Order: sequence, then C-alpha cells, then structure tokens
Amino acid sequence: MAITANDPHRKSWLDVPSESDFPIQNIPFGVFLTKEHVVTIGTRIGDYAIDLGALQQLDYFEGIELTDDMFMQDTLNDFISDGHKTWRQVRNRIADIFDAENPKLRDNKEHREVVIFNVSDVEMQLPVLIGDYTDFYSSREHATNVGKMFRDPENALLPNWLHIPVGYHGRSSTIVPSGIPVHRPMGQTLPNGETTPVFGPSRLVDFELETGFITTDANIMGENIPVHEAEEHIFGMVLLNDWSARDIQKWEYVPLGPFLAKNFATSISPWIVTMDALEPFRTKGPKQNPMPLPYLQQKGKHAFDICLEVSIKPEKAEETIVSKSNFKYMYWSMSQQLAHHTSNGCRVNSGDLMGSGTISGPTEDSFGSMLELTWGGKNPIKMNDGSERKFINDNDTVIMRGYCKNAEVRIGFGEVSSKLLPPFARN
Amino acid sequence: MAITANDPHRKSWLDVPSESDFPIQNIPFGVFLTKEHVVTIGTRIGDYAIDLGALQQLDYFEGIELTDDMFMQDTLNDFISDGHKTWRQVRNRIADIFDAENPKLRDNKEHREVVIFNVSDVEMQLPVLIGDYTDFYSSREHATNVGKMFRDPENALLPNWLHIPVGYHGRSSTIVPSGIPVHRPMGQTLPNGETTPVFGPSRLVDFELETGFITTDANIMGENIPVHEAEEHIFGMVLLNDWSARDIQKWEYVPLGPFLAKNFATSISPWIVTMDALEPFRTKGPKQNPMPLPYLQQKGKHAFDICLEVSIKPEKAEETIVSKSNFKYMYWSMSQQLAHHTSNGCRVNSGDLMGSGTISGPTEDSFGSMLELTWGGKNPIKMNDGSERKFINDNDTVIMRGYCKNAEVRIGFGEVSSKLLPPFARN
Repeated sequence: MAITANDPHRKSWLDVPSESDFPIQNIPFGVFLTKEHVVTIGTRIGDYAIDLGALQQLDYFEGIELTDDMFMQDTLNDFISDGHKTWRQVRNRIADIFDAENPKLRDNKEHREVVIFNVSDVEMQLPVLIGDYTDFYSSREHATNVGKMFRDPENALLPNWLHIPVGYHGRSSTIVPSGIPVHRPMGQTLPNGETTPVFGPSRLVDFELETGFITTDANIMGENIPVHEAEEHIFGMVLLNDWSARDIQKWEYVPLGPFLAKNFATSISPWIVTMDALEPFRTKGPKQNPMPLPYLQQKGKHAFDICLEVSIKPEKAEETIVSKSNFKYMYWSMSQQLAHHTSNGCRVNSGDLMGSGTISGPTEDSFGSMLELTWGGKNPIKMNDGSERKFINDNDTVIMRGYCKNAEVRIGFGEVSSKLLPPFARN
Repeated sequence: MAITANDPHRKSWLDVPSESDFPIQNIPFGVFLTKEHVVTIGTRIGDYAIDLGALQQLDYFEGIELTDDMFMQDTLNDFISDGHKTWRQVRNRIADIFDAENPKLRDNKEHREVVIFNVSDVEMQLPVLIGDYTDFYSSREHATNVGKMFRDPENALLPNWLHIPVGYHGRSSTIVPSGIPVHRPMGQTLPNGETTPVFGPSRLVDFELETGFITTDANIMGENIPVHEAEEHIFGMVLLNDWSARDIQKWEYVPLGPFLAKNFATSISPWIVTMDALEPFRTKGPKQNPMPLPYLQQKGKHAFDICLEVSIKPEKAEETIVSKSNFKYMYWSMSQQLAHHTSNGCRVNSGDLMGSGTISGPTEDSFGSMLELTWGGKNPIKMNDGSERKFINDNDTVIMRGYCKNAEVRIGFGEVSSKLLPPFARN
C-alpha cells in the first residue's frame, strides 16, 4: 500500500505556519486531554490538535477495519497492536480528510467544532502505556567520550562495543511527557577522595539527548525478530531526555549498571512521528567495521537524517542552544537494536519504548550531554544571559527539538521540554 | 486490626494434608483459570483453589469495602492498590469462612460447588500485571562468591556494596508463572582466548534462587518512602528463579549491567504469600557493619526465616536437591531495598516486583546458583541418577521450594518449577 500521506505537494485546508513541524505530511499520533476532561487519541496539523475518536464516531474512517472504540482510548497500544497496514491506512485517510481539495469535513462546521482544537487548549498525555523501557548506548562518539573521561583515553571503547548494540533496562514508571517538571534527585554519592558516601541532593544533574522508538507486539517468548523484519515492528519515534545524575551514577553503577542515577525521570515528546512519515529521510549510517555478526548484518539505508538540538532556559532568561546533533550519527540502527534485543527470545510488546542512547556527533558542539559538552565540568558553557553552566541548575528548563527537512517538506517532533525543580519537599 | 487469620489453633473444614504449605493460616492470593475458562482471583487451602470472585458474588465479603468486581479480575493489582487494611480484612474474613466451626459455606453444597476447585483442575496465571521489575543483589555471600571468582579474591566485595542495596532494572515482559517452560537462549559470547565473538545457544544456563516482593502504589513521583514506612507498602512474597546465561552475561555486562543474559525469562511461584502470613517468622538479619546511612537505618527484626531449596529434575529421573538456603541470610532487608529504590523519588506502582538477588548461605551447599555451587563449573554436582551437572541441561526442570515453620504452623510458597527447553525453533 502506497504512503499517499507523504505526497509533498499536498496542502491542508487547515493553516500550517511555515517552518511548522506538523504539515499534513507528518500526521503523528498522540493522546490528549481536552478542556472538557475527555481523553482521546489524536493527531496534529499545524497548531491544531485533531480528535481521532470524534472523527471515528462521525464515520470518517469507514472502510478501515478498526474496533469501535479504537481511538476513544487513553493509550495508543491497541492501535499500534493492529500493525503497520492499519497504521498506514489510517494515516493516509487522515491526509485525505484534511486535504485542501476535500470538502467533507472542511465545509462541515458542526463536525469541525467537535474534531478540531487549538493545541494550546489541550493537555498532552503519555501516548502509550509503556510496559518495558530499554535504553541503548549506540553512539560511538558518546561511548568514546565517556571512555576517554572515565577509563583509558587510548582504549576508550570497551571490547564488546563494536560487536553489540549495548543496552540495559530502564524504569517505565517515571517516564513523563513533555511539560511535566522533574525534581532534582536525592541520592548516595562518594565525595572525591573519601571512602564513606554521603546522602543528599545530586550536584551533577544532566540531560542526555536521545530519541526513542515505540514497538508493536512482534514475537512470542523464545522467538527472535530477524534484523530484516525489524523495521516493520517499529511504529514511530519520539524525542527523549534521559535525565541523569552523574554523581549518583558514578558511585552506584559498578557492576550492575545505572539505577537510581537514571530512574528518577525520563521525559519524552508527546507526538509519535511514524516511520512512514520519516521514510523520505532514510540515509546510510556510519560504516560498521568490524562487520557485525550475521544476525546484525543489514544492507541499504537504515539510519535517519534527523536534526536535533538542545537548549537550556534559565528561569528568568531566554534559552541558549547548547548542542546541535543528528540522529544519523548513530552507529547501530534501530533495526539492529531490535534484532539484538530479541535475539535471545525476549518478548517485545505493543507500546514498549527503546531509547537510542545519548546521540553525540563528531564535533564538540554536537555532544549530547553536559558531561561531554563541558568535559566533566572542566569547560563550563557560557549562556546568553552571561551565566555559566557545568550541569543543570534548579529551575532550568531543558528543551530538545528535532526535525527532518528536505527541499519539499519539514517533518518534526515538536519538543520535549522539562523543568528541573529543587528536591521534592514533603508538605 | 488484629491478624486473626494467623491464629495457630484454627482448623479448617477443608482437608489440609500434614506438611502442606497452605494451612488455613496461610491464605495466599493468586489468579487462576478454571476448566470452564473463567479467570478469577483466588486463594488456596490445602489442595483446594478457592474462587474469591464467586465468594464475593455470593456476598461472603459483606461489610468489607470492595468494588463490585474486585475479585472478578485477571490480576491482583486493584486489590493490592486498596492497601494493607483491606488486605487484612479480606484475609481475616477468608479464615472465618473456612474455619471448622463456621457452617455457612461448609454446609452449603450449592455454594461449595461454585467456590471450591481441586488445585489440579485449575491453571495458575501470573498473579499481577508487573509494570516494573527490579532485581537486587543483596546477599553478601553471593556477591562475595562472584567477586572471588571474577575479580579479586582478597577484595571480593566492591566498595559500594556495604553502603548500597545494589539493584538494577529487569524485564517485565518475560516474567512467567511456575509451569511455563523456558527456551535456552541464543546469544553473543566470547570464546576463551578469542577476540571475536560468536553467536549461538548459551552453553552456561543457570538458575538463581531468589524471592521477590510485590509492592502497592506507595508514592508520587519525586517522593521517597522512608525505611520505617516501607513494610506497609509490601503486599507479599513469591519465589523467583532469575534464569541467567553466564556466557552471554560475561561478554555483555560491562559497563551497563546484565541484559540479554537475564531477560529471556524469569519464573515466579504463582501464590503471593502475604507479609501478614509471614509475620510470625520475622527474625533479625545479619549485623550491618559499617552502619548504613541514616535513610537506610532500621531497628528490630526485618528479616524473615524462610527455608529455601533448589532441585534439578532430569527429564527421565527423579530430582536431586542441589541447594538449601534461607532468606534470613540476606544482608539488606526488603524495607531497606524499597527505601533505597525510592530515595531518589522513583515512583513505585501496585504490582511492581522486586527480586532479592541470589540468596546464598554461608556454606557450600547453600549457594543459590550453579555458578557458585560448582565454582564456575570446576566442581560438577553429582545427581541421584549418576549424571553430573555443571550448569542446567536441556530438558532439566529446576524446582525451587520455600516454607517457614515453627512449633505450631508451616507457611509455604509451594514451588516455582520450570523446564529448560532446547533453543526455540521456528516452524
């Protein structure tokens, strides 16, 4: 089935500002709460949030096989579970409904009033119920930077890194959508030169610039997903801020990996941009040398050219862009990550989230964390308001944005923005 | 409210075999499927599975505040969310209903027929929907054994171990109840002396003898659970086999911890034994030296005296007991684990599972994994059928059992039993 929703010449009868992340060629999926406290599945065009539950009730999806309440739910899990044929049918249909030439909804004021909201009038929710969250570590530049700082500058990459898309399990219960503030975590740390740890607020709270992909239920327990089939089990992508407390991490992570340093919060952008929408931005990833083992080998273009940037906004000042990176730098592709994750028979469910790992580029201004940008705090970043940052201060807001762009169209993610509050205080 | 269900002198009108794990003083909670394909929440007395949904419909819980369909569900999450006062009321009521002196159900044949099943006629399910699964590493003997084998025999414990109940995130999607077989995982390993990894079936599949505890929803994001409040947020315990592929683990786990070596399967016993039922078996844990930081300090008895054993049953032979251990050996208590887990504000939900980590005792026959029992395969275990085991063979069944016992009563978990099948083959 053709992805007619991607037609770059199509225009919508809804107004789309120039440089919007959400032209009619995007059609992402999300979940929002209206002012009337109704939760629904929706999409976005320009600055309009569109209620897909209302559209379904008004029969705009006639002819597509969907359960009656498919879009009147508070998560996308069931829709994602229906598989990529249904995703594509629905996305194509939405493009038709909002096509400038289609009068059906355009000229029906009554319908428009129950279907279309200003994005500023809705509250975005988590788009999926995330059963399991996995975070990978797939940027060679990031792994090299961390290795140089904490291990051996001459042998920065660990021996397994070029053979395995290294990953580990994260915590689902603290994944929040853009806009939800996050408290500076308390935790155990070992002061420099001491042998006895102390407990208190983390002094080194950091962001990690990542993307995440959302899977459908793809295999039974014991079964693997071959690398050449993996892409069809990926629904779409979000931006992801993997909040990290570096001082807690340093003391706790040997030998079982990061735990409390990470699980206090993970923030994601609320609109899932489908792999279909990202299709025009497919590109070749970095050359893999040594050749991966056969179960990870793939030919063709499996990376995506997604421009990424991170800003820090102090409480009473304008934001400063601190990093510009790109998803195409990732050494391991999403399909390799998913094939590896299931190579042992690990079951993947609809709505599972898999993070890319910090996306650092090759240059010093493209690193994906303050740890790397300031080289462990040695080189503070100058902010537009004259202040300096080694890590994130209380009441700073960290904003990540991402978009793809070619001569014809711009497809974006919007942003994931979250404010770091002081440590939680009980009333 | 008193725990009248624990009265050691109470007898049931249901037959309870001597040495049963499930006298009327136990009253665990689980979920089962009947022959008529009805899923219900239930309890167990002797060899009878009791349908709590049917009991509720017949008004046996009158006077206890419960939603109408509380027990007609396929998970215990909502019930657990109701909190420890409700758990205790229901458990006390069940003890009353089945008390030898109470004729109400005893003498009502019609009711008995819809409420009581033979355990052999029902199929046990996962008792909870597990949102997040955390595994700790809290046995000093286990951490010391592993440290001696893989690091420095003179400094076996890592510097953080005596200060932190070390833990990490596991995978929820592959947690299965007792009885579900598990496939030997495929994976990447690095052969001894080589620098290039290979992909194939793990050659070193192991069990880890653990228990797990199930939490209720206890805090909002950002908020911690103080150590002295932690116990009231623990619903109960299960036995847990943390299946592990040692060769995959060795190659993948630095620096982010075990991943595919563990997430192919975790098996749990299906009946959750409540902390109320375990109350008489409270005991003192090991002395903690150095003194933990204040947020982990607790006085009194926070360990539990639970006898544990592991058997291996070859396909065509009787089982051999390979380890006898005890939960009381754990250095860190469950309440310390939960207080630590939430010390950074990590949210805990109803139905979350937290594993103890391998429970090794002080003697060589009380170690909780084949890795330790055979000291890395150096000292194979002699089986009753004359065969030997370094690790687990295809078609072996690993059976873990656990019980508490004093002069008056025995409270047990039943077993978690699962067969290791050969690697999964696609049809």
